[in-house]
Amino acid sequence: MTDHEVAHQLATAVAPPGPRVPVVGMVGAGQLARMTAQAAIALGIGFRVLAGAPDESAAQVCAGTQLGDYRSLDDLLDFSGGCDVVTFDHEHVPEPHLIALEQAGLKVRPGPGALRYAQDKRAMRERLAGLGIACPRSATVASLDDVLDFTDGSGWPVVLKAVTGGYDGKGVWVCGSPDEAAVVVAHGLDLLAEEYVAFDRELAVLVARSPSGQGAVYPVVQTVQRDGICREVLAPAPGLAEATAIAAQQLGLAIAAGIGVTGMLAVELFETAGGLLVNELAMRPHNSGHWTIEGARTSQFEQHLRAVLDLPLGAPVMAAESAVMVNVLGGDDPDLHSRLVHVMAADPGIKVHLYGKAARPGRKVGHVTAVGDDLENLRDRAWRAASYLSRGVEHDG
Amino acid sequence: MTDHEVAHQLATAVAPPGPRVPVVGMVGAGQLARMTAQAAIALGIGFRVLAGAPDESAAQVCAGTQLGDYRSLDDLLDFSGGCDVVTFDHEHVPEPHLIALEQAGLKVRPGPGALRYAQDKRAMRERLAGLGIACPRSATVASLDDVLDFTDGSGWPVVLKAVTGGYDGKGVWVCGSPDEAAVVVAHGLDLLAEEYVAFDRELAVLVARSPSGQGAVYPVVQTVQRDGICREVLAPAPGLAEATAIAAQQLGLAIAAGIGVTGMLAVELFETAGGLLVNELAMRPHNSGHWTIEGARTSQFEQHLRAVLDLPLGAPVMAAESAVMVNVLGGDDPDLHSRLVHVMAADPGIKVHLYGKAARPGRKVGHVTAVGDDLENLRDRAWRAASYLSRGVEHDG
Repeated sequence: MTDHEVAHQLATAVAPPGPRVPVVGMVGAGQLARMTAQAAIALGIGFRVLAGAPDESAAQVCAGTQLGDYRSLDDLLDFSGGCDVVTFDHEHVPEPHLIALEQAGLKVRPGPGALRYAQDKRAMRERLAGLGIACPRSATVASLDDVLDFTDGSGWPVVLKAVTGGYDGKGVWVCGSPDEAAVVVAHGLDLLAEEYVAFDRELAVLVARSPSGQGAVYPVVQTVQRDGICREVLAPAPGLAEATAIAAQQLGLAIAAGIGVTGMLAVELFETAGGLLVNELAMRPHNSGHWTIEGARTSQFEQHLRAVLDLPLGAPVMAAESAVMVNVLGGDDPDLHSRLVHVMAADPGIKVHLYGKAARPGRKVGHVTAVGDDLENLRDRAWRAASYLSRGVEHDG
Repeated sequence: MTDHEVAHQLATAVAPPGPRVPVVGMVGAGQLARMTAQAAIALGIGFRVLAGAPDESAAQVCAGTQLGDYRSLDDLLDFSGGCDVVTFDHEHVPEPHLIALEQAGLKVRPGPGALRYAQDKRAMRERLAGLGIACPRSATVASLDDVLDFTDGSGWPVVLKAVTGGYDGKGVWVCGSPDEAAVVVAHGLDLLAEEYVAFDRELAVLVARSPSGQGAVYPVVQTVQRDGICREVLAPAPGLAEATAIAAQQLGLAIAAGIGVTGMLAVELFETAGGLLVNELAMRPHNSGHWTIEGARTSQFEQHLRAVLDLPLGAPVMAAESAVMVNVLGGDDPDLHSRLVHVMAADPGIKVHLYGKAARPGRKVGHVTAVGDDLENLRDRAWRAASYLSRGVEHDG
């Protein structure tokens, strides 16, 4: 039997049996959709993904895969027609399409009124300022002169950010000099200049919020980025002052309610001597929450589904004293799977998550999580496993 | 877009990208295959199921679903051709077909040499006796006279079992009198008579064994059956003497090695004043191990995949002090999903697993797990949630 014939046999496999169960459609088929599909299986709901290509991470595993382009309103309407709720594994669906989906009577969660603050950094800064929430100083810049005006107050280096379209460090430039800034400005992008924050560390707080207004907040985590990519997450953030943890959680809940998020909201924070500053927002399951699969009673993926379906939220409490997640980045040898044997033999307790993605250098292709009560031991184990999966050696360069 | 058109778009979605990853094919598409599919997603392997119908539990969610009949060698060969390893969510594939698959060069795990001891209760009793493992007394019976001969030694009631084809209490009859036995004998089945064991309680031990001989054993659990169906599992078995726990684990490992199991082996045990007796064997993930999804570091579903792929086994240790699983049986109202709201609102920490099955009365349609450190609290919560999902009331009748 050919693959084509196999697929033909799938024809009716997406129809749920018996009484109608709700169907969630997720636009995008990356690893976030893939891990959401796992959570959907347990809840017994229908789950579909809109994938750009059949080899995308979630399309490989999810029976309810439909191919289409998230930039096409026709494709979005086609996909959404069979779904009770539409949600997203990325923030790149154009705002006019989101509005059109809502106008077509679909439940879009998060809705365009909230999602714009994850799509447009300028709108986000303005809205957070309106909510009285502290952020790095920022200004719209259209020319090098604008940048120089801004740095007169904030100094160098300066952070230039594309107002729209950035993710995983893309669309963010840390410029140490006017010459470097001039190169970025020359791209002609719509830019925001932000002060370079000399933070003590980066934190993140994950919040779920349902349409009926219920909120749930996870323990505050520490994130470690390199080259703009999240590498490591420590849950809960070690040594965090209780007052700071509470402030971060209140801030997450306030933002979720203030901008009307439904589903998961990730708030990336800078911890500074002067307090917490909001760096970025994401309205979907987020890399800073992958540890929740094993480390929390309710994973962020299950929680996102519960929230967008307006089901009561799950307990966001730790399932162990600590959890450490380290991302697996692609290395020179793409054959990740051949290295599983070593990792599993070396550490029977490590939890490996591979995304089915081709392992190009530097690309997120999986993550590992270690859960237990000795943070330094967990970090050591998670880094060894992730480094070996990436590069065939146990220590990261 | 119609469902048919949606399904057409799935055409190439089953092809994994980049370097070749191993593909496991599971024959059968019930809830065991469905939960194995969840585990396969994290491991980044290919996973396919052979389903009898498109609305079966695993077929609803698994991109790699192929329709076919496990009783047809052609269908089995067709399915297995694209798989590196063939495994099973039930024990009903005819032995000659298993042998033919092996002769075709396929890796069949568990192989027919082991699986026959889960298919044929007489062969199982003889083999366990050969391994020196204590079982209830048993004898082949072809007539009521044979039964009466047997009960001369063992007394009444007597347990009559179909030698092949039984599961979930089907094919097992507890007969209190010669009249009752006569009714069973009249069916003309190949029967085994077994002594009725006045056990203190039922235990189960789950073992994984890989082709290269590695073994891993889970903590011994207590199971509670009603009408031949598993209702509740307590992990670890409360108050179990350490020597008994060790004996049960050694017994599980000895059986797995003795009969050459690959994958998961569940050994159902009677705890009696005179020691442990083996009741039944199953060679697949098993209802007595569903608690491992949240309650153990490695779930039985991940462990089964690791074992059949000959990957190093995962840690079979508890992830919390205790776990309680209660099965959700179908009640009169099939609309399980409408009752999720109450269960989730009442207990944000309960973990619900629904199988996507039509809720006929008495049918296993899901399970719930509570994990924590206060066993009585966990039992109370798990029973409330399962009873409400089944019947819309919080206490089981």
